Amino acid sequence: MGTLYLIGLGLCDERDLTIRALEVLREEVSEVYIELYTARPKGLNVQNLERLIEKKVNVLSRELVESNYLLNRAKEKNIALIVPGDPLVATTHISLILDAKRMGIKYRIIHNASVLTAIPGACGLHAYKFGRTTTLPYPYKGYIFESPYDVIKENLRRGLHTLVLLDLNPEKGSSMTINEGIEILLKIEERRREGVIRNDSILVGIANVGSEDEIIKAGYPRDLIEYDFGEGMHSIVVVGNLHFTEAEALVYLADAPREILEDA
Amino acid sequence: MGTLYLIGLGLCDERDLTIRALEVLREEVSEVYIELYTARPKGLNVQNLERLIEKKVNVLSRELVESNYLLNRAKEKNIALIVPGDPLVATTHISLILDAKRMGIKYRIIHNASVLTAIPGACGLHAYKFGRTTTLPYPYKGYIFESPYDVIKENLRRGLHTLVLLDLNPEKGSSMTINEGIEILLKIEERRREGVIRNDSILVGIANVGSEDEIIKAGYPRDLIEYDFGEGMHSIVVVGNLHFTEAEALVYLADAPREILEDA
Repeated sequence: MGTLYLIGLGLCDERDLTIRALEVLREEVSEVYIELYTARPKGLNVQNLERLIEKKVNVLSRELVESNYLLNRAKEKNIALIVPGDPLVATTHISLILDAKRMGIKYRIIHNASVLTAIPGACGLHAYKFGRTTTLPYPYKGYIFESPYDVIKENLRRGLHTLVLLDLNPEKGSSMTINEGIEILLKIEERRREGVIRNDSILVGIANVGSEDEIIKAGYPRDLIEYDFGEGMHSIVVVGNLHFTEAEALVYLADAPREILEDA
Repeated sequence: MGTLYLIGLGLCDERDLTIRALEVLREEVSEVYIELYTARPKGLNVQNLERLIEKKVNVLSRELVESNYLLNRAKEKNIALIVPGDPLVATTHISLILDAKRMGIKYRIIHNASVLTAIPGACGLHAYKFGRTTTLPYPYKGYIFESPYDVIKENLRRGLHTLVLLDLNPEKGSSMTINEGIEILLKIEERRREGVIRNDSILVGIANVGSEDEIIKAGYPRDLIEYDFGEGMHSIVVVGNLHFTEAEALVYLADAPREILEDA
């Protein structure tokens, strides 16, 4: 009987692996897999990863990760699945350890940085002032999912910020852009007219947090909708009530309009 | 002019540093500091850290971190401050980069795992079903701070889970215990009587998440208040409405009472 290691890759590339993860990958496991459908860090190059851990890395599809493929292999030997960010933030991987537990297969989690905590900090916003997180999906056959709008609305009512994760575009291998995301939010606003995304709303666009290509830019929807954040993983924060130090941080770290200092 | 590196230590010990952080600490910086007042991972031993990075590590007090001590040194050379978890989750460190920006000193953040995302995952709970996080402080001269109760109440009203971080006990060098935390929550409940912490509330106690000594145990307040979670960093999750897979995870991964499967 082997062990299934679920290993967080962190935010950017193979050098964000922890020393503990590197030791496990080099010394403890005989097969290494990675999934790149929950997120795809821009800097990641599978060949560089293979050189670092001195092993072949197999990219697994969602279908195979969600099947018993990994667990059947872990019955016989130690195997590792590398996951971008923290490995259990994607709820689909909780099923994997639940199934491991049921089948009597040992597992071990190696945590890592996640956009869920990196983004609030990188924006200079207080982590405890965030309400629940939401994900903005691409419209499906013309249908726009409005539940992210409701999450933002609920959070705003309590003065809280909202981290809006953007859907992955499987063809492009990166996320929906911040520009596309704001466009979708404005379309929902146009239909609902509940004043959740207003002309004077402060949004923050965050591209490739933690990497050399990180871009963090705060502003009104009209400021951000045309802004070029480059390729990679994008996210949006919809800002609630600002503590004065948060407003300062947005101005100094994210080039927000200075007038937000007056209201905070 | 030097660079100030803010480096996340992650959850447990020096082997949770990322490869990128190790490279910076060994090759880029001439002075290394660590703060251990926002959290103190049980497995951390400063001497092991020094051996790993091949440099002396100075433990800094809150007073010195919050002064201009580090920034003045970073004017002349590259220095690093190591912070448990993700370096910007502690809001006090956001002031540090804000001051660096104002003083024209370059800074670089190296993110790492934080309890804020590791704990939801390790419990098998969905990260996007958490409301805002709160910290339970020790009573001060007999006065019990009730704001964490209000945060839990607000979250529960929306069906959301609450991560309750526990104050650090600076004398013991570890956090308030889960048992002490539940006792304080029950005292607030006794005064407020708003049914936020009830006999049939499901709580999760989490000790030393991500480490070899990790203990995760779910149950009613009476089940957990006597439970021995050992030494180290403790936290509590107050559970809101459970999705069926979350209830399963709590039963299989955290030994929750099986009857929670019926309601989920």
